[in-house]
Amino acid sequence: MSIYAAGIDIGGTNTKIGIVSDRGEILSRKVIRTFDYRTPELFKSEIIKILNESAGSFGPEISGIGIGAPNANYYTGCIEFAPNLPWKGIIDLVKGLDYSGPVRITNDANAAAVGEKLFGAARDFTDFITVTLGTGVGGGIFCDSKLLYGKFGMAGEIGHVVSVPGGRKCNCGRKGCIERYCAAGGIVETALELVNTAEYGKSSLKGFDSKTLTTKIIYDAAIEGDAAALKTFDMTACYLASFLSDLVNLFSPEAIIISGGVAKSGSVLLDPLEKYFRNDLMEYYAGKEIRLMRSALPEQDAAIIGAASLAFQELKG
Amino acid sequence: MSIYAAGIDIGGTNTKIGIVSDRGEILSRKVIRTFDYRTPELFKSEIIKILNESAGSFGPEISGIGIGAPNANYYTGCIEFAPNLPWKGIIDLVKGLDYSGPVRITNDANAAAVGEKLFGAARDFTDFITVTLGTGVGGGIFCDSKLLYGKFGMAGEIGHVVSVPGGRKCNCGRKGCIERYCAAGGIVETALELVNTAEYGKSSLKGFDSKTLTTKIIYDAAIEGDAAALKTFDMTACYLASFLSDLVNLFSPEAIIISGGVAKSGSVLLDPLEKYFRNDLMEYYAGKEIRLMRSALPEQDAAIIGAASLAFQELKG
Repeated sequence: MSIYAAGIDIGGTNTKIGIVSDRGEILSRKVIRTFDYRTPELFKSEIIKILNESAGSFGPEISGIGIGAPNANYYTGCIEFAPNLPWKGIIDLVKGLDYSGPVRITNDANAAAVGEKLFGAARDFTDFITVTLGTGVGGGIFCDSKLLYGKFGMAGEIGHVVSVPGGRKCNCGRKGCIERYCAAGGIVETALELVNTAEYGKSSLKGFDSKTLTTKIIYDAAIEGDAAALKTFDMTACYLASFLSDLVNLFSPEAIIISGGVAKSGSVLLDPLEKYFRNDLMEYYAGKEIRLMRSALPEQDAAIIGAASLAFQELKG
Repeated sequence: MSIYAAGIDIGGTNTKIGIVSDRGEILSRKVIRTFDYRTPELFKSEIIKILNESAGSFGPEISGIGIGAPNANYYTGCIEFAPNLPWKGIIDLVKGLDYSGPVRITNDANAAAVGEKLFGAARDFTDFITVTLGTGVGGGIFCDSKLLYGKFGMAGEIGHVVSVPGGRKCNCGRKGCIERYCAAGGIVETALELVNTAEYGKSSLKGFDSKTLTTKIIYDAAIEGDAAALKTFDMTACYLASFLSDLVNLFSPEAIIISGGVAKSGSVLLDPLEKYFRNDLMEYYAGKEIRLMRSALPEQDAAIIGAASLAFQELKG
């Protein structure tokens, strides 16, 4: 008999709620707008209401709840100072949501890694790193089959590792974070910098600005052979490869799994990434197979499945 | 009753062999020259001979052997392609050394971390990172009270994380590794670059070259107030602080422990390091105590104690 858990993905715009089976199938989905709820209490009441309805209409008993959210701390059950959410300070998300069975929260990128381990590309791996390239750069790190939380529950915050000292200013206060080069906004910035040089001045991307240019437009231009667009992905791959090679030196993983909207660029990004990455690895790793793979979870459902996986991990010990 | 283990620290110049009690006391020490032994077999025979003599003269039974060595792989028991040792390729160090009880090897920096956990500054910590600043930069990473090895046994290779993209060439093939800025040779290079500028042309370090200048000389000059020497340590601290802050984002540790010859520079290095490090941490860590400490092991014995600790860790499960 199947077990069911709720997977909740809290984002700056929308919150997705799904009921997921322990085979990774989503039975039902619902989306609410996060900013419609002025207080965490109103938000949690709405979640409980939705879960009651979902459990009611499908019949399955919900054995646990998993939540992925920005700046969520696994140990405390709280969201701490999340800049993109409506609730400020330290928000306890577990209290009041203890609807049935365990409630576990972690940041969205960690949840994605757990999803990948239970239902995705990492099922057979003990030591791997997931890298989510989207509006930010997130990470989840498995060591010896366990997700790494660290002492303060915030390990795997890979997006704010400095890639370019003194480089682009980041919201976090540092300069040159990898997120500012390999997340969507950073890629757009790289493209705009290129088209403002003489060499790439004839690019079809000329005329766009930071508000109108998207990674999708850059991708389409790259497919058409636009030199600036191709160079943009090449530079992004180069930044990312050096960073991934650093992670290999630190964690000695057997696989790195790439997901998120930017990963949809496919071979335009992943081919140069593969090339630079292999070239950047230390000699020691020459004969060893470190896989560089794409996520095996459907992108639109990965966050819900990942969040629910947190609960399954708890339920199955 | 005490238990005793042999701690063996294999270096490019010397190999140190000590008999260590399970309270971290060294009962006897012996040093041999690593390059005097043309083959690993001759080397291992000599080790066995020394252990027989040591055990004979002091009476203690040796319950296990721990070895710290460059490029040593915990899982295979082999040294793999160590550039600074006399034996090439993959060298099995365990076979033939199974003198009594378990034999465990790992790289010297990992061994130092285990020593710090069992007998040093990290006794009360579950999540910490040791950073050894010497001729190279080495690291050992404890997560949830376990040393991180990763899938291939080579996790914690922090010295070859890139700090300055496109920067100084490193022996490992990459450019800009942290080792090229914060190990002894890198610090010397920073000082020489400075004294060759107009601003620092009057430094007392002017006239030295890469063969004659040492971190000790730079340290002495800094104590005398030499501006180039002080700037050298300030820059070193700045590189290191950014890197340590990256490690905090990745591992969320409760402490970082600094050891090695360069750490003897004391407050000349550690005061600016502390300042830059706190400044570089993400807002999230503002209220959380991440300790930045020096090793509590005597520097000349840390490697032997660390190596023996590997065996104790095994013996005590």
